[in-house]
Amino acid sequence: MTLEPVAIFRSPLSSKFGIPRQSGLVPALAGEIRLEGRFRREEALRGLEGFSHLWLLWGFSANRGAASDSLLVRPPRLGGNRSVGVFASRSPYRPNPIGLSSVRIEHIDAAAGVIRVSGADLMDGTPVYDIKPYVKYTDSHPDARSGFVDETPWQPLEVVIPAALESCFSPQDLAALRQLLAQDPRPAYQDSDKAYGFPFAGHDIRFTVSGNTLTVLACVPSAV
Amino acid sequence: MTLEPVAIFRSPLSSKFGIPRQSGLVPALAGEIRLEGRFRREEALRGLEGFSHLWLLWGFSANRGAASDSLLVRPPRLGGNRSVGVFASRSPYRPNPIGLSSVRIEHIDAAAGVIRVSGADLMDGTPVYDIKPYVKYTDSHPDARSGFVDETPWQPLEVVIPAALESCFSPQDLAALRQLLAQDPRPAYQDSDKAYGFPFAGHDIRFTVSGNTLTVLACVPSAV
Repeated sequence: MTLEPVAIFRSPLSSKFGIPRQSGLVPALAGEIRLEGRFRREEALRGLEGFSHLWLLWGFSANRGAASDSLLVRPPRLGGNRSVGVFASRSPYRPNPIGLSSVRIEHIDAAAGVIRVSGADLMDGTPVYDIKPYVKYTDSHPDARSGFVDETPWQPLEVVIPAALESCFSPQDLAALRQLLAQDPRPAYQDSDKAYGFPFAGHDIRFTVSGNTLTVLACVPSAV
Repeated sequence: MTLEPVAIFRSPLSSKFGIPRQSGLVPALAGEIRLEGRFRREEALRGLEGFSHLWLLWGFSANRGAASDSLLVRPPRLGGNRSVGVFASRSPYRPNPIGLSSVRIEHIDAAAGVIRVSGADLMDGTPVYDIKPYVKYTDSHPDARSGFVDETPWQPLEVVIPAALESCFSPQDLAALRQLLAQDPRPAYQDSDKAYGFPFAGHDIRFTVSGNTLTVLACVPSAV
């Protein structure tokens, strides 16, 4: 089967660094789904206003290198040092590199073909292959058991942003950035004291982590 | 993006007639995911035993005819006479014909590459493109609003199966068939008094519906 993008995702995160590890982890993070080409028609979204959430099926467009033959992956949640089967993981490195994310609908502009959402884990420019309404009775299983995900809870970091750097961002972007950083966006293998960084909302962020505290060091406008 | 099947689905439903309209509607309905080719390896499923549910991304392989240019569909739940946008619907007739279903895991035979599940809405022989674990914290939204789905609750039918016909099926298949029929498997436009039918677990079922009661008329072994 061959897939054609129906939309492009717009996010303040322009690289794969800093992307939340799952949807919903950074509820303050805003994004936009923009229908493309012949799919940008008002009727395509008719009736969606009655739904609070939607599903995105999208491409892991930032994967690097050729697909591996291995069917094992090392989830960040397991510290990067335990393997599980690819079909027991949401890893982007999978036989068909399709991501699945539920996001909250914030606003629908059907005439423009734009849906504003929050909580997405897609980077800017990601191709979207399908948009489906979230249907509670068939999609929500609040009693589900989630294996190693349940067994290894994530410890959020304390985030320190010096007051002088807060003015880099709008209040909304700042709230999203705090939630993003609290999720610990470092790679699984970490050098202590190393400075890390990623682009966010037009700025390059630099930070270090010491113990359970993440401190932002700098915020400079990204080169265009 | 081009997709390659990783598995084939096995179901007692060998045609698209009678398929539940969503996953979870017929919890007694058993099915099997069978990994195919180079994906049938024990390690592919390692760690999945800790999860109660999984997601299937699959192809709407029973769609007939060419894709329509229309971006409107008529959901059966709305009686087939109201249109909504394709991205506000789970209709199989969509730009990229990929289905999304959560199913319950009943048993995993990793060595054979087989996962027994229940509650699926896939017909026999459906190609499966991805298997992902259901992760409660990111996938379950028990407070979600589901638009026209919430507003038009489905009225199950009363199902009458004469005692002489019950012996067609194993107790498990019979339980699934009762749930299937209660969902009203008729097309959206219905002739009263017409006899309908579909193949199930190697038999052709015939039934009529009068008022709120569905009565099974016959059960004969399917031609092979």
